[in-house]
Amino acid sequence: MNGSATHGGPARGKVAILGTGLIGASLAAALTQARAGWHLAGYSPGDDAQVARALGHLDAACTSVAEAVTDAAFVVLAAPVPALPALFAQIREALAPQAIVTDCASTKSSVIEAARAALGDAFLRYVPGHPIAGSEHSGAQAADADLFRGRRWLLCPLASTPRQHCAAVTRFLEPTGARVETLDPLVHDRLFAEASHWPHAVAFALSAAIAGHELAQDALEYSGAGLRDTTRIGASSPTLWADILLDNRDACLGSAERFRACVEQIENGLRNADREALVQLFSLASRWRNQLT
Amino acid sequence: MNGSATHGGPARGKVAILGTGLIGASLAAALTQARAGWHLAGYSPGDDAQVARALGHLDAACTSVAEAVTDAAFVVLAAPVPALPALFAQIREALAPQAIVTDCASTKSSVIEAARAALGDAFLRYVPGHPIAGSEHSGAQAADADLFRGRRWLLCPLASTPRQHCAAVTRFLEPTGARVETLDPLVHDRLFAEASHWPHAVAFALSAAIAGHELAQDALEYSGAGLRDTTRIGASSPTLWADILLDNRDACLGSAERFRACVEQIENGLRNADREALVQLFSLASRWRNQLT
Repeated sequence: MNGSATHGGPARGKVAILGTGLIGASLAAALTQARAGWHLAGYSPGDDAQVARALGHLDAACTSVAEAVTDAAFVVLAAPVPALPALFAQIREALAPQAIVTDCASTKSSVIEAARAALGDAFLRYVPGHPIAGSEHSGAQAADADLFRGRRWLLCPLASTPRQHCAAVTRFLEPTGARVETLDPLVHDRLFAEASHWPHAVAFALSAAIAGHELAQDALEYSGAGLRDTTRIGASSPTLWADILLDNRDACLGSAERFRACVEQIENGLRNADREALVQLFSLASRWRNQLT
Repeated sequence: MNGSATHGGPARGKVAILGTGLIGASLAAALTQARAGWHLAGYSPGDDAQVARALGHLDAACTSVAEAVTDAAFVVLAAPVPALPALFAQIREALAPQAIVTDCASTKSSVIEAARAALGDAFLRYVPGHPIAGSEHSGAQAADADLFRGRRWLLCPLASTPRQHCAAVTRFLEPTGARVETLDPLVHDRLFAEASHWPHAVAFALSAAIAGHELAQDALEYSGAGLRDTTRIGASSPTLWADILLDNRDACLGSAERFRACVEQIENGLRNADREALVQLFSLASRWRNQLT
């Protein structure tokens, strides 16, 4: 294990962080800054773990998943969603008998199914998680020890997940300053489809529609604050969001259907010059939006 | 004319401002602050003209359209779009032979048709206008002498509009600090449908869809910056935006159709788990959006 010698060995035990981009490296940075006492072993397929090690956030940059996971008391998966099924399979071999596993993915149902399929008996020691924090920056270079401070970190245990494992993850996360709360995984996915994933699709759709218009360049030129805000998240990573939306597909298709019904109501209101119908729908919208402070 | 006696009479002539809400009262405030030398006569159906007079932005708060328009060299319509057809009809009777008429409406084709129908010979002295400025506040109370400074003020003359009338309006607006530019009225309406009017409909549709969801309250609770930005203009005035969208109906329905096609592409991509199709659409979107600084 690289680096453990120079740090004099772990006081409380070892933590494996698999995937040390923004989220994984920020977790490492937060635990290091808080002197939480763990030996922090990171692994990433690229050079993020080396970067996080060089920045002083990790004690060790491991060269394999197995090396990071061996003897770890906590295993945190902070890799992109599409990498998780293979990662669950890889960690199973090296997992210590009492190790607790958690993840940071922004969807839960599909990740839980991947964990169930791969982890065997260890599935009972898996506590699904989702830190509600992020940044427009990515990679270990952007790590921020205060990224989670004051933000929610949701745990989405199944009915079968022993409560002491949730409590252990909650204590483990305490040094990050996050507010740890629990939420049913299905509710989680429908809520995030509605409040985050599908709104990203809408911003992409609006930006793409304008981009395909002959006046696309003029629209840039004449854009006001309204267009800038409505399309802002349309500048997000195409591959990241394709994966998130696909991963939470059923819930997103539900949100899509209800959204499209509202769009069609507006189109019908315009076609029929039905001012009352438009005012009614817009009033429902603005009453809800005005509650968002 | 109320107030003219106390102000010692006009130095350059009289200006009528019909509708003295945010836009009309801010124009008055800008001309007053710049000591442009006009006698500023305002009219509003409510008490906005009295408020603007009390705040020192107007020389006179008139009790009728005719009183404001009589002997005015410039007549500026700054009332909401639905009020304009009747206003054009009312001003015709009182309009001085050389008076130039302009407006501040955010759509142009329908307003031009209303002017053509009502103004008779005076239609040649009508220069369609659209100041690209606004605020979340409204009414004369919110008047800001610097509202237009550095912002575009578009003039949308027809082929038949004499250029000297455009030049006269440009000189008249100079004290506001706005950048006066000209744009074809049909291009104007398609561009604003795309860059402003339809994006408002999208924000209303997204907000209404969430408002109708059983998790609407939780969505407020768990909203991130993405949802806040995407829905921000969904808090706008329902009646104001119903009228703007209806007034620019044809162009908005065109924007709607292309937008809905993009939404359906995303839904199909999700349904068919076609990651490549999603990434392609999202990439088009984000390339365009990343040009918006």
